[in-house]
Amino acid sequence: MPRNFADDLQAAIKAKKTPACVGIDPVYSMLPAEIAEHKDLNDAADSEASLDAVLEFCRRVIRIVAPIVPAVKINSAFFERFYWEGLEGYFDIIQEAREADLIVIGDCKRGDIGSTAEMYARAMLADPDFSDLDELEGPHAVTLSPYFGLDGVKPFIDVAREQGKGVFVVVRTTNESADTIQNAKLEGGLTVAEHIAQQVAAWSQDEGLVGKSGYSAVGAVVAARDAESAVRLRGMMPNCTFLVPGYGAQGATAADVAPLFKSDGTGALVSASRSIIYAYDNMRYIERFASEWDKAIEQACKDFVAELAQVVKV
Amino acid sequence: MPRNFADDLQAAIKAKKTPACVGIDPVYSMLPAEIAEHKDLNDAADSEASLDAVLEFCRRVIRIVAPIVPAVKINSAFFERFYWEGLEGYFDIIQEAREADLIVIGDCKRGDIGSTAEMYARAMLADPDFSDLDELEGPHAVTLSPYFGLDGVKPFIDVAREQGKGVFVVVRTTNESADTIQNAKLEGGLTVAEHIAQQVAAWSQDEGLVGKSGYSAVGAVVAARDAESAVRLRGMMPNCTFLVPGYGAQGATAADVAPLFKSDGTGALVSASRSIIYAYDNMRYIERFASEWDKAIEQACKDFVAELAQVVKV
Repeated sequence: MPRNFADDLQAAIKAKKTPACVGIDPVYSMLPAEIAEHKDLNDAADSEASLDAVLEFCRRVIRIVAPIVPAVKINSAFFERFYWEGLEGYFDIIQEAREADLIVIGDCKRGDIGSTAEMYARAMLADPDFSDLDELEGPHAVTLSPYFGLDGVKPFIDVAREQGKGVFVVVRTTNESADTIQNAKLEGGLTVAEHIAQQVAAWSQDEGLVGKSGYSAVGAVVAARDAESAVRLRGMMPNCTFLVPGYGAQGATAADVAPLFKSDGTGALVSASRSIIYAYDNMRYIERFASEWDKAIEQACKDFVAELAQVVKV
Repeated sequence: MPRNFADDLQAAIKAKKTPACVGIDPVYSMLPAEIAEHKDLNDAADSEASLDAVLEFCRRVIRIVAPIVPAVKINSAFFERFYWEGLEGYFDIIQEAREADLIVIGDCKRGDIGSTAEMYARAMLADPDFSDLDELEGPHAVTLSPYFGLDGVKPFIDVAREQGKGVFVVVRTTNESADTIQNAKLEGGLTVAEHIAQQVAAWSQDEGLVGKSGYSAVGAVVAARDAESAVRLRGMMPNCTFLVPGYGAQGATAADVAPLFKSDGTGALVSASRSIIYAYDNMRYIERFASEWDKAIEQACKDFVAELAQVVKV
């Protein structure tokens, strides 16, 4: 039987005893002075020097968090802003994270109609049909936009099934203005997000996707909003692992994310980005660690794991 | 007063006397034998040789269509599938198209929450804050995914306003399965696509976006579906230029796209991709042009313009 992404993720969560994921959204101006030495000079305006510093920071963050968490979510936008060199760096950092035995989620939110989606699937899930690129592994899973329906998701699901990889379809996001669209009520009483959740649930049960863990290679991005909608979405997508963004800097707490887990403690992977990787800029850690930025990140990562452990037992 | 993308597009359409746009979605296996010499050998599996051929083809297509149409839509997915080298090629081809005096739309369907959307806006609208990249111009406009609401679109609108560029927010797509989401009925009677159209209409009227032409730098991607919904969407977004995909290979005809224009012949830019750039593989042209693939493309492009002229006078 081929690998199943959901099973692999489940096993990694069990091994590290936490469903915590660190989100890597690197911004040059936020880097520690040690890495971005010339941040305060005009050198910051050089893209190569900036990108080099960003990549070095990502490598260091990966080394710090790899012993603590099972997974990282790497946000492609923060690399794409450095154009093609940035995209190369994105794949390099993915490779580093794989080599650190982390499950790697490429947060790229791609989506389009069928023939274009097929190209994006080859691109973002790294399924090149070129012999000279056959060592390119890419992330274990990617995030997808749902607005195009099944056509836009199917090519990714096909690659995922074939390669033992996964997808997380965006259902509910953290930002306030998403409500105007995702929370709009349909005639039957469901919200748009719930309607999409029903679609994702159906896609997740397609042949060859559900692993031994009972979870599918097709998961969902579900932000922690109110508890009531969390419970509904959890019930609607029984086979989907939820990738839960928005922990920490975006405002979600351990209590907020708790209803996105099943009662057995499975079913969600909670991602915190800025609150971890910029912990050295956070009042909570700034005095204690001063310029030891790596220690601040490590402590914030451990605190994140401890907070989750209060509400969910793995 | 700074440039306005909608005014520039309007002027380009008037100058070329057609609202036709050629979509560039290059696939190596479809290239003419002259360009992809080794297509039938195993060399096709080499990414560099494949990408070189793809880029050469794009350059030739641009030279053929530039005298005929005002705009090209360049689909980033077909370049991203060649990873970072492909992304560099994408920006090269955009530059070539700009130099051929074409309006260039980057079809990248990006979207995410605020802080990430800001990175994508810098990336895809080419707004680098690096001095060494200040000659990177990027496309005149990009396509965007609407599912995140205003937060996901605002950073693009801000860059567009500042740089005299534009955005097209996806409202209605051509693929069948999109109906399950885009055509779902909301409590008030609108479909999800119409609800999003209302949002886009509101965003389009924001300060500094509507040009002298009466059109906004914020437009919409609206596929030709049934005439009734076309008329409704046209009425709901009076200040939005529609980017209309799906002409030709995806099945839309001139009669189908007609209701997406206003009665004065303005308001839409119709894009045909495969039916133009692969015309040499189309029964309609194959006998007449044989191996003169460039002439087949030229003729298909002229036929496309003539077909549109039957239903809309510019």
